[in-house]
Amino acid sequence: MTDVAAPADTRPRVTISRPVEWCDTDAAGHHHHGAVLRWVEAAEAELLRRHGQAALFGRIPRVRYEVDYRNRLWFGQLVQVELVLARLGEKSIRYDFTVRGEDTVAATGSLTIAFAQPDSPRAEPWPEEVRAALGGQGRT
Amino acid sequence: MTDVAAPADTRPRVTISRPVEWCDTDAAGHHHHGAVLRWVEAAEAELLRRHGQAALFGRIPRVRYEVDYRNRLWFGQLVQVELVLARLGEKSIRYDFTVRGEDTVAATGSLTIAFAQPDSPRAEPWPEEVRAALGGQGRT
Amino acid sequence: MTDVAAPADTRPRVTISRPVEWCDTDAAGHHHHGAVLRWVEAAEAELLRRHGQAALFGRIPRVRYEVDYRNRLWFGQLVQVELVLARLGEKSIRYDFTVRGEDTVAATGSLTIAFAQPDSPRAEPWPEEVRAALGGQGRT
Amino acid sequence: MTDVAAPADTRPRVTISRPVEWCDTDAAGHHHHGAVLRWVEAAEAELLRRHGQAALFGRIPRVRYEVDYRNRLWFGQLVQVELVLARLGEKSIRYDFTVRGEDTVAATGSLTIAFAQPDSPRAEPWPEEVRAALGGQGRT
Repeated sequence: MTDVAAPADTRPRVTISRPVEWCDTDAAGHHHHGAVLRWVEAAEAELLRRHGQAALFGRIPRVRYEVDYRNRLWFGQLVQVELVLARLGEKSIRYDFTVRGEDTVAATGSLTIAFAQPDSPRAEPWPEEVRAALGGQGRT
Repeated sequence: MTDVAAPADTRPRVTISRPVEWCDTDAAGHHHHGAVLRWVEAAEAELLRRHGQAALFGRIPRVRYEVDYRNRLWFGQLVQVELVLARLGEKSIRYDFTVRGEDTVAATGSLTIAFAQPDSPRAEPWPEEVRAALGGQGRT
Repeated sequence: MTDVAAPADTRPRVTISRPVEWCDTDAAGHHHHGAVLRWVEAAEAELLRRHGQAALFGRIPRVRYEVDYRNRLWFGQLVQVELVLARLGEKSIRYDFTVRGEDTVAATGSLTIAFAQPDSPRAEPWPEEVRAALGGQGRT
Repeated sequence: MTDVAAPADTRPRVTISRPVEWCDTDAAGHHHHGAVLRWVEAAEAELLRRHGQAALFGRIPRVRYEVDYRNRLWFGQLVQVELVLARLGEKSIRYDFTVRGEDTVAATGSLTIAFAQPDSPRAEPWPEEVRAALGGQGRT
């Protein structure tokens, strides 16, 4: 019987906190689902910033977004958004995220982005320095 | 050889137009992806309104949203959002949507909603009048 | 007694209609006040577009905005936004606006913009073609 | 010559920090002016929360908002929003605010709210406990 520890998960990840603002709510009384999309992008910005890659914004169009909503969030609650760089592909990145309220999971999902010049319809391979900065175990 | 016409697609559907507003853009120069979510919901509101069901809002929490982004949209472009009630389940509805720019498909995806009382975590069967109003061929 | 007609008001003006979308509401049940700001800018875009000046966006930073809120607007109501180019200054424009619900005035106010290059802190005189396109009686 | 210290300013006040999110920007490259309105409301929520009055939201319709924009803010900058309860009237409150970027003032202005039941067009006097909680030197 070998005695090998499971490898640590070194994929880039971040957790940010945001209050549910009044403008995040709608007439149902709880959060509007567009708020989840904004929180996820705020977490992505923080993750990229921590890895020195925030300047990618403007060249990382979103190519897919999917989310399952599980519970309501209410004005003033503190939301935790956990985002992990789940897969670093040749020309794309997939993030997985979990949005939590005080004691519930409000939403889970994923966001896939690509690397493309501002006016180009075509994705390009990530520059080497981006791969180096974001590699972790996320690479495949 | 029989001579039977294919049945017409009578599922409820709607197409709305919206200009890309300045506040729909971001510093990449084109539309922010949150705009798609708002346009889809505007189309849903118009579809429900036309079938006398707009008062459902507030009791139809979103349970799943997925979208593939295909092309950029620019300030001032007129966007066409086509939304079809693709599936009327016992307690949920799935809409499929296509967002078009002037000569491109900008996004395709689906939105699934459920029927639930404002403070209840549990979905309920659609009231009979809702099924009657929205039935079309969407029922399964 | 002379027989002189009052001069017609030829200042550029526009009225647009927008439904109150679900995402325009908040947990108070009615429209969030940020919606007014977006509607006003949508009216401005339409006014500039009709005068061939929509390309100004990006070089017309907002310098002042003021609004008095008078009545609530509710999901699904059709809102009328009337915007008039009230004053065309050397380097700025002031629009006055009125936002109406079905039978009430919801908000009145004004928005002042300037002409400035994207990265410059300093306003510049309007180009001659802008003055010519927007002049009407708005010039001073 | 008397030796009287100026009275301390005990008006309720708060300063919050928010990063400029990607969705706060527009195609001009810098922040969209609607972001200021959201930041101001976030500061108001924090101020009321600290004084145990966050539950007022839903019964405090906005009655006036005015803002002067002075400088651009860019994606990723940390914004400081200082809000002070400048005047506690019988039925209304006026907040004054200053929004700062890293080394500039981006916007200054004021927001006036009233106290009203959710469906009433008429403002009411603040409840005594609200006055007690928010009084400070702001009362007049």
